[in-house]
Amino acid sequence: MSDITRVALDAMGGDNAPKEIVKGAVEAVKLRKDIHVLLTGREEVLKKELSEYTYPEDQIEIINATEVIETAEPPVMAIRRKKDSSIVVAMNLVKKKEADAFVSAGSTGAVLVGGQLLVGRIKGVKRPPLAPLLPTLKGVSLLIDCGANVDARSSHLVQFARMGTIYMEHVLGKKNPTVGIVNIGAEEEKGNALVKETFPILKACKDIHFIGSVEAREIPYGAADVIVCEAFVGNVILKLYEGVGGALVKKIKKGMMSSVRSKIGALLVKPALKATLKDFDSSEYGGAPLLGLNGLVVKTHGSSTSKEVCNSIIQCLTFKEQRINEKIREAIQKAEDEQKEE
Amino acid sequence: MSDITRVALDAMGGDNAPKEIVKGAVEAVKLRKDIHVLLTGREEVLKKELSEYTYPEDQIEIINATEVIETAEPPVMAIRRKKDSSIVVAMNLVKKKEADAFVSAGSTGAVLVGGQLLVGRIKGVKRPPLAPLLPTLKGVSLLIDCGANVDARSSHLVQFARMGTIYMEHVLGKKNPTVGIVNIGAEEEKGNALVKETFPILKACKDIHFIGSVEAREIPYGAADVIVCEAFVGNVILKLYEGVGGALVKKIKKGMMSSVRSKIGALLVKPALKATLKDFDSSEYGGAPLLGLNGLVVKTHGSSTSKEVCNSIIQCLTFKEQRINEKIREAIQKAEDEQKEE
Repeated sequence: MSDITRVALDAMGGDNAPKEIVKGAVEAVKLRKDIHVLLTGREEVLKKELSEYTYPEDQIEIINATEVIETAEPPVMAIRRKKDSSIVVAMNLVKKKEADAFVSAGSTGAVLVGGQLLVGRIKGVKRPPLAPLLPTLKGVSLLIDCGANVDARSSHLVQFARMGTIYMEHVLGKKNPTVGIVNIGAEEEKGNALVKETFPILKACKDIHFIGSVEAREIPYGAADVIVCEAFVGNVILKLYEGVGGALVKKIKKGMMSSVRSKIGALLVKPALKATLKDFDSSEYGGAPLLGLNGLVVKTHGSSTSKEVCNSIIQCLTFKEQRINEKIREAIQKAEDEQKEE
Repeated sequence: MSDITRVALDAMGGDNAPKEIVKGAVEAVKLRKDIHVLLTGREEVLKKELSEYTYPEDQIEIINATEVIETAEPPVMAIRRKKDSSIVVAMNLVKKKEADAFVSAGSTGAVLVGGQLLVGRIKGVKRPPLAPLLPTLKGVSLLIDCGANVDARSSHLVQFARMGTIYMEHVLGKKNPTVGIVNIGAEEEKGNALVKETFPILKACKDIHFIGSVEAREIPYGAADVIVCEAFVGNVILKLYEGVGGALVKKIKKGMMSSVRSKIGALLVKPALKATLKDFDSSEYGGAPLLGLNGLVVKTHGSSTSKEVCNSIIQCLTFKEQRINEKIREAIQKAEDEQKEE
């Protein structure tokens, strides 16, 4: 295995593409010598963008892709039809082992569908979950699953817990990470059918540091390192985090403009407030991995700037160095073997 | 029908019982002559509490109840066994039509179970939903259902939309309120099995002003007047609202203490900030009704102070004046009749 991590980067995806995406690639290769970026997108556009920077040119390569998948397009059809789109071309590089990882700020749906259809699942993995990091008062928690595979079964949730544990331990460096399941009360007998079925299975898993139910109220306080839920609930949590945070900040800013006294105060607290809110902005924490695939697929925020793109690329290094996919493969295999023995 | 609204009040429920509960009753009867409060709880304790106030004494009556249901008790067993608890005694007053409404800051589970077992459902209502008001940038939205009846069916959700519409229109005075369903995307084909099944039914209801899917991110901005979802998701939304708000405020306060400059600023913005945050605190909006029962049942926040208790009592007046339960009965009946005709 090469010591170079090859990252296929969707240069056409996201609100700020291609400018910020290309800039993020340039920033990443300036930081690390062991990265090779494969920029997929319209060659002439990307050449022009790249010509604006000075950087180690042998570390960025353009792979021409003439089409672009828009966010509003139905993902399955888009992946099937737009064979020459920046997403499909990049994912095929991962499939052909010409790239170790894929990073995109484009259509979440297309990334999720493409990940499953083109890159493919690790043997034994039933569903690849999308797992973003949520900012909390204690640091970050991994919210798993926020993808598009709704109506999950308990066996899926148990795999999510297992994969989330490996990610938090080896990519984020959190020793023996705690795992909680999102529930509407702390007691074991509470919850919907899915949670009630999953709870005792998680409790019995020796490789999962399960701490029981986590109420949504406790998530922002850092209740568990890995927060397990099915994708519909995960999506609601992720979006509401953003919504309540955004609305509250808007309201606070407006409130501070309500009197001369508070206007002066607002000027004084502004720098401290800005730093505080940045800490609590989920887009600051790089991309969300789509775990359990034969290769790494990372979805970054649609509004990503160069900094987040760069962070997402750098994140791929740790993922490869720590052999996360091999660890997932082994853990899933071991759990399956143990189940057969019983 | 009498012009007096008789409210049975659980004097022993909540973190601040009985002091704040009794105080809330006193405040309510001082404000309105057309309220009669039936305080349920330990007679000697309540007599002593009441003796501290001057108020129109004929408007508050003590109904002795010797037991108390604790928050941690399994609700079904508690309701069945503790026949002389403040909750069961109060609910039986509603059942026997000796009270029009019941207000409690006690165990949510016991209130939900007691509502169904003792007060009973309006004919045709499949499940009584718990419907709190959420603060938004535009005012408030009704979140329906946040109760304990998880794993709902589409026919339940449609009834929630119908009951929520009646409540928002006639209690909150919102003309032709908009109804949205919580979903993970805006398109009709998105969602889990339950949402996909419910969407076209809501779309076809002539008595519901359905505006389609609402993403969780949009809820704090006031995306719809009535936000429909099943109870597990509703509970996550309600609790996360509180959690993100609380954690963010804690972080902002800490951030403001990080330098001398921002400490001075913090002093200046404090009053404006406090008023702003109060607007965005869901406990400010009185109690959450448990809709669809033969009588009104209102659950107020466990940490309610006298002000919230008083607001919750006053809320019962509008509910009775507007004949909400008759309107619900008629609407449910009409929808059933129309379905039979098809």
